[in-house]
Amino acid sequence: MQIDSTLTPFVPPVRTAMRLSRYFLPNLRETPKEAEIASHRLMLRAGLIRQQSAGIYSWLPLGLRVLNKITAIIREEQVRAGAQEILMPTIQPADLWRESGRYDAYGKEMLRIRDRHDREMLYGPTNEEMVTDIARAYVRSYKDLPLNLYHIQWKFRDEIRPRFGTMRSREFLMKDAYSFDIDAEEARHSYNRMFTAYLRTFSRLGLKAIPMQADTGPIGGDLSHEFIILASTGESEVFCHQDFLDFPIPAADTDFEDKEALQAIFDRWTSLYAATSEKHDPATFEAIAPAKQVSARGIEVGHIFYFGTKYSEPFGLSVAGSDGRDHLLHMGSYGIGPSRLVAALIEANHDEAGIIWPDPVAPFHVSLLNLKVGDEATDVAARRIETALTARGFDVLYDDRDERPGAKFATADLIGSPWQVLVGPKSLAEGKVEVKRRATGERELLSVEDAVERIAS
Amino acid sequence: MQIDSTLTPFVPPVRTAMRLSRYFLPNLRETPKEAEIASHRLMLRAGLIRQQSAGIYSWLPLGLRVLNKITAIIREEQVRAGAQEILMPTIQPADLWRESGRYDAYGKEMLRIRDRHDREMLYGPTNEEMVTDIARAYVRSYKDLPLNLYHIQWKFRDEIRPRFGTMRSREFLMKDAYSFDIDAEEARHSYNRMFTAYLRTFSRLGLKAIPMQADTGPIGGDLSHEFIILASTGESEVFCHQDFLDFPIPAADTDFEDKEALQAIFDRWTSLYAATSEKHDPATFEAIAPAKQVSARGIEVGHIFYFGTKYSEPFGLSVAGSDGRDHLLHMGSYGIGPSRLVAALIEANHDEAGIIWPDPVAPFHVSLLNLKVGDEATDVAARRIETALTARGFDVLYDDRDERPGAKFATADLIGSPWQVLVGPKSLAEGKVEVKRRATGERELLSVEDAVERIAS
Repeated sequence: MQIDSTLTPFVPPVRTAMRLSRYFLPNLRETPKEAEIASHRLMLRAGLIRQQSAGIYSWLPLGLRVLNKITAIIREEQVRAGAQEILMPTIQPADLWRESGRYDAYGKEMLRIRDRHDREMLYGPTNEEMVTDIARAYVRSYKDLPLNLYHIQWKFRDEIRPRFGTMRSREFLMKDAYSFDIDAEEARHSYNRMFTAYLRTFSRLGLKAIPMQADTGPIGGDLSHEFIILASTGESEVFCHQDFLDFPIPAADTDFEDKEALQAIFDRWTSLYAATSEKHDPATFEAIAPAKQVSARGIEVGHIFYFGTKYSEPFGLSVAGSDGRDHLLHMGSYGIGPSRLVAALIEANHDEAGIIWPDPVAPFHVSLLNLKVGDEATDVAARRIETALTARGFDVLYDDRDERPGAKFATADLIGSPWQVLVGPKSLAEGKVEVKRRATGERELLSVEDAVERIAS
Repeated sequence: MQIDSTLTPFVPPVRTAMRLSRYFLPNLRETPKEAEIASHRLMLRAGLIRQQSAGIYSWLPLGLRVLNKITAIIREEQVRAGAQEILMPTIQPADLWRESGRYDAYGKEMLRIRDRHDREMLYGPTNEEMVTDIARAYVRSYKDLPLNLYHIQWKFRDEIRPRFGTMRSREFLMKDAYSFDIDAEEARHSYNRMFTAYLRTFSRLGLKAIPMQADTGPIGGDLSHEFIILASTGESEVFCHQDFLDFPIPAADTDFEDKEALQAIFDRWTSLYAATSEKHDPATFEAIAPAKQVSARGIEVGHIFYFGTKYSEPFGLSVAGSDGRDHLLHMGSYGIGPSRLVAALIEANHDEAGIIWPDPVAPFHVSLLNLKVGDEATDVAARRIETALTARGFDVLYDDRDERPGAKFATADLIGSPWQVLVGPKSLAEGKVEVKRRATGERELLSVEDAVERIAS
């Protein structure tokens, strides 16, 4: 498969201009009591999600836009790394999980279902079994390898006490990729492809993610990394060398076929100390120069595993190699939770007034505030800006509601568009509009033309 | 909400070139025994889907591409008509369905689930209850109306005997939209918006769909149309006036705010006789001039309903009108099944050799066949064509496998790209490649440049 790296398998919403008077954006004035963490509070208040039952959410238009922008970036990087998209169903037969021995082992987190014919089914919490079954059906020889199949599908884990909104929900969206290789060495290359793709993915999402050695848990296997972002409200304690924060991200033109290049990326990104509290070794950490010791809170945003023949063996997934003999395939799996990422992004990017979206995932790039709707001058200027920015490819949310300026400021700060353009009669009398950068609060008075250029630059 | 109608909320895969030697396209040589209808056989043979259990399928890369192209067109037309996208979860609480009285009424088709705390849940077969609950939470006044929320989400109906592949599967994808209006007159306009959007949607998918009066079934209500396409392998008998087949489709610049214009579209498209066998009135049909009587097999591809206050009443969904009084909202729901449409499209477009995709939904526009891989001349010419067509925005599947020409012809015919370009050493010695139109079998010998122009024109 050859992919021009400038091309994308999916493109998120582009050049859409919305009028807030007609947009379904139900902001809440009060902070919902059940929300314990900032991202959960802000997602409810800003109208990104609505809880439908414990740990189960609807995504409202603003939230869905963020989710789609995240999955678009994930898709681009999966394809760049050589993975192919499929879509497995949510409901799986129990028998498939009996083959791996995980049906009984998985416990109460698995949502078990009996259909009308009393057949045992389940809502997939992950897809190792099903994808191994797919490979078993179709992969015939080493010539069909390497193979990496991913899908982006809703999963269900019946958490005993779901909390923290979409950070730890029961029904959640997951991108899970699965690699199949003829031997351990090739599987290592597949692992490095995803390792590199994840570095690029999180960076493009506006996050600094650090790979940390991890336990393999119920997935099994012997090589595994969690990708952790640092956020003061993070769920767990993490420890790492500060230099990680300045490591360069692999470039878009990285050759994913080049085994040595990818191994070098892996080696570099695992050359310094980084550990979650589970794997923490205080002695090694203390040996780092004190100025370089980072001890912080972290949020897991991705997890990758190499588990060899753990599934291919019980499933009898073997193919003829170039040596004419049968080989059990070596597998890995690679997960990112987009619905969790929405919450993680907010944990890492918010203030008292609301969300501060990184540009690549902002539901709207620009909140355009008409401070006196009905005034001909402000109406004309706002529409000109809306048209100009939309033509330049920006997603613009035009607040054309008949509301007082204070309410519009609060909405714009809450929903967190990176840019705000304020069109008021006073400034406009002098030919100016105000451009505000949400992250810094920095404001500039500019002409309409300069305001558009300022944002476009 | 203002949408430039040339813009799209989602864009399907663009300009991707795939090499078949690396593409996961598991074609089957034998016709699967369990498949009773052409689309099911072809979807299995061409590697679009794999059955995971009765009525539950995985979508393989080729099938997923078609599904994504279909949903992209549906999204564009939903947005054009003024609907806003949300995403509701698959798992719903039983209590919500007790409010409408449908929990007990729905019967065994509903997949009922108990979670670890023994709470009654279900896998949503449709979403009237949940979306009414969302509106109840947020819609406060007539100023928030009209509102149309749609989502594209997997549903589950536990069919007693699932068959016909994705035409009637248990886990299936559905686009379902829900409109909320202050009174019956406004709701009529919302109905007409979707009626018009559906005419445009099916036409853009390459289908001739005819709206037919329908029973409302378990959704309830008193105004309802099914959209039926004619296909000789259709599931049911339908009867209509032949003139429908030549009615013009509403244009892209149709003003969806114009109530009279939309009513005129509705009136025209319901002015002649059209009925499924359930609603068939032989006397009326016989009164049509014999030459204009169409009696054929049909496949339902969409279904729209106006059901007034059927759900707003039990849910207490009322808001203040401009008259200051409370009004129960009038609702409608509007469904299209993209996973079913893939099958319907194949039923309407295939021959003995395989699928014949209409251009707008073809997974690849062009199958590029290198008939002598390793020959420098054919390799160079094929790569030139691949590059040129990809740059022009076509999805190209380049068959670079080390296979005999006969196998490549069979694959190309089976997977049904609208165009085939055959690059063989003999023709190439005379500077020519062969361009074949899949639908007609028409072939032309052209220079490389002319071949690209022929396809692009």
